[in-house]
Amino acid sequence: MNGINKTALEKRIEELISAYCSKYGHLLGFESVKTVCDQAVISGRNGKRLRAMLLITAARFATQRAEQNNFFNALEESKVFDIACALEIFQTAALVHDDIIDNADVRRGQPSAHKALSYLTKKPDETVGTGLGIMLGDILATVSVQAVNAAASGFFLHGSILADFLGMQQMVEFGQVMDISSEITDLSKAKNLTLIAETVYQFKTASYTTIAPLALGFMCAGIEPDTARKIALKAGKPVGVAFQIADDLLDIISTEKDTGKPIGGDIREGKRTSIFADTLNALKEGGSESREDYLWLLDFYADRKRDSEGVKRVADLMHSTGAIERAKNRTEDLLKSAQYEIMSCSGEILTNEGKENICRAFNAFIPEKIFK
Amino acid sequence: MNGINKTALEKRIEELISAYCSKYGHLLGFESVKTVCDQAVISGRNGKRLRAMLLITAARFATQRAEQNNFFNALEESKVFDIACALEIFQTAALVHDDIIDNADVRRGQPSAHKALSYLTKKPDETVGTGLGIMLGDILATVSVQAVNAAASGFFLHGSILADFLGMQQMVEFGQVMDISSEITDLSKAKNLTLIAETVYQFKTASYTTIAPLALGFMCAGIEPDTARKIALKAGKPVGVAFQIADDLLDIISTEKDTGKPIGGDIREGKRTSIFADTLNALKEGGSESREDYLWLLDFYADRKRDSEGVKRVADLMHSTGAIERAKNRTEDLLKSAQYEIMSCSGEILTNEGKENICRAFNAFIPEKIFK
Repeated sequence: MNGINKTALEKRIEELISAYCSKYGHLLGFESVKTVCDQAVISGRNGKRLRAMLLITAARFATQRAEQNNFFNALEESKVFDIACALEIFQTAALVHDDIIDNADVRRGQPSAHKALSYLTKKPDETVGTGLGIMLGDILATVSVQAVNAAASGFFLHGSILADFLGMQQMVEFGQVMDISSEITDLSKAKNLTLIAETVYQFKTASYTTIAPLALGFMCAGIEPDTARKIALKAGKPVGVAFQIADDLLDIISTEKDTGKPIGGDIREGKRTSIFADTLNALKEGGSESREDYLWLLDFYADRKRDSEGVKRVADLMHSTGAIERAKNRTEDLLKSAQYEIMSCSGEILTNEGKENICRAFNAFIPEKIFK
Repeated sequence: MNGINKTALEKRIEELISAYCSKYGHLLGFESVKTVCDQAVISGRNGKRLRAMLLITAARFATQRAEQNNFFNALEESKVFDIACALEIFQTAALVHDDIIDNADVRRGQPSAHKALSYLTKKPDETVGTGLGIMLGDILATVSVQAVNAAASGFFLHGSILADFLGMQQMVEFGQVMDISSEITDLSKAKNLTLIAETVYQFKTASYTTIAPLALGFMCAGIEPDTARKIALKAGKPVGVAFQIADDLLDIISTEKDTGKPIGGDIREGKRTSIFADTLNALKEGGSESREDYLWLLDFYADRKRDSEGVKRVADLMHSTGAIERAKNRTEDLLKSAQYEIMSCSGEILTNEGKENICRAFNAFIPEKIFK
């Protein structure tokens, strides 16, 4: 994306994690310390790095305009690079805790961190895995802030960059809380399920996927924090929510080989995705004709064990009610609305070239498959 | 302690937690968000606040000397106060995760956070409690750094104060990892168990209990970071380790009413305390005479279920081998050594009055009961 070297990002992420963990090198006599440090590096690998690339793109093109306006010096690209890497490290931290909460065994095609850490003992021990996993998430979250504090120290807006990075962490954390809550509400009584799902997406996903990358990137370029935050929210929220809906879609219309996760996993886990909410709504509004399917779906999601046959039936209902088609359209609308916000932001902040580059960066968040 | 108002500390801790969580006030429609915000405040209550008081004491008296030397302005006491509160908030974050890892039901005489949060649903749900508990710990850790970032922004050493606060978090996190590891090592083969226990104590306890409060307090007073860190480690490490040993002692020689936790809890959980290590060592070295007790103790700690009768027998062995007595002496020696370090630090940094006040603050970390 925009000529940003993904391999260099991977390398720097690994370097930063290793550097902050290696302070404890003399403690490697503690087998668990070595194991956790190694796992920190392993868990940090193989992301798509879309977030880091968006941050760098935003910083780069906002700086270009600032330079033309003669009110800002050349950007210290290596520091922006580190802040972008810190964002990816925080994502890993969040995923490690997320996988514990969801009891997920697989992540990016590999054993999830707490699963891998449960093998510290000869006989895998879940309690040990969970304990070390909680700590690994904590360690990675701390490392991410350490990296931002170090990198941002030279920037004009040091304090604001740090405050926004922390604010982003908090949004993700509350998003997770909202998610846990939404998954235990009584579906037969719940209203506005689709709206609830999209609010969770704003906090849990858009926050760190698109809103913070834009805000942080702009601030690295010296754009005044309130302005940076305003544009970041207006444009970042829709594309971030679209990204999550697209991810939910992939869980149903994709293959395990593509995603590195078992297909239909969200259904199996009873996730209250916006597609599920829309399906349930459609069945409810279908009246007597779809009543049987509606009641079955309620039961199936109320249950803790969901079998493969049922998962398939849910996927079929998502198609037959038109929920899949509507989700595809919604994704497209949100993406366009995000791009519209960028295109209409002040020429003082971004040149046309800059706007086009950020819009292209947005495209990368939505797999082409969605629109086919 | 030193005229610091504990009630004011309690109040400010609650204010800070509420302020950072209330940004999500509009989301209180999510029942879980409200519950987690409330629990954040509840979990933050009723600490002894020894750490905050030590930080404030160190800052106040180092500043007094700096003012006499005419190289520093009057300290912004309210900002130091906030950093001290942030340290307490971080402690709560760490305890919330610790209680999940240890599967502890009680904390400070109240239900532990994840236990309380499991009641979000009508029928208590452990999975929900653990998930929300992990997030609560994350939220509190983030709030603590947010508070430091905001408070330290006016200080000369903003970046270093933040870096040390984060470094402290990382030490605690790795200390926890070491702790989990030490609890699964094969006791029959392990060497240097007492040294291992004290290394864990340095990371898991002394780090945030005494080392960071001293270092942060000194830095708030403008003392050069390397000097501040050096004194903090030399004096903070022994008194922090002494504090943990004293805490372990209380678990055996105290009553439930005093500690708010069931007595012998560490033994029941199979904690590898330094007292346990010393007891096991003594029995091993006692040869054939104590062989039966030694083998029984190994077995008892290898087991996952430890009954009350066994817990009592372990406590008796801790007394009869002299381990309790030695732990008391060790606590006293460590405390004295910490006070010696403070008394012998440069007069450029602390006046004699300042030194005496910090030494008195150290005394508060060791309950009088220990020396009786």
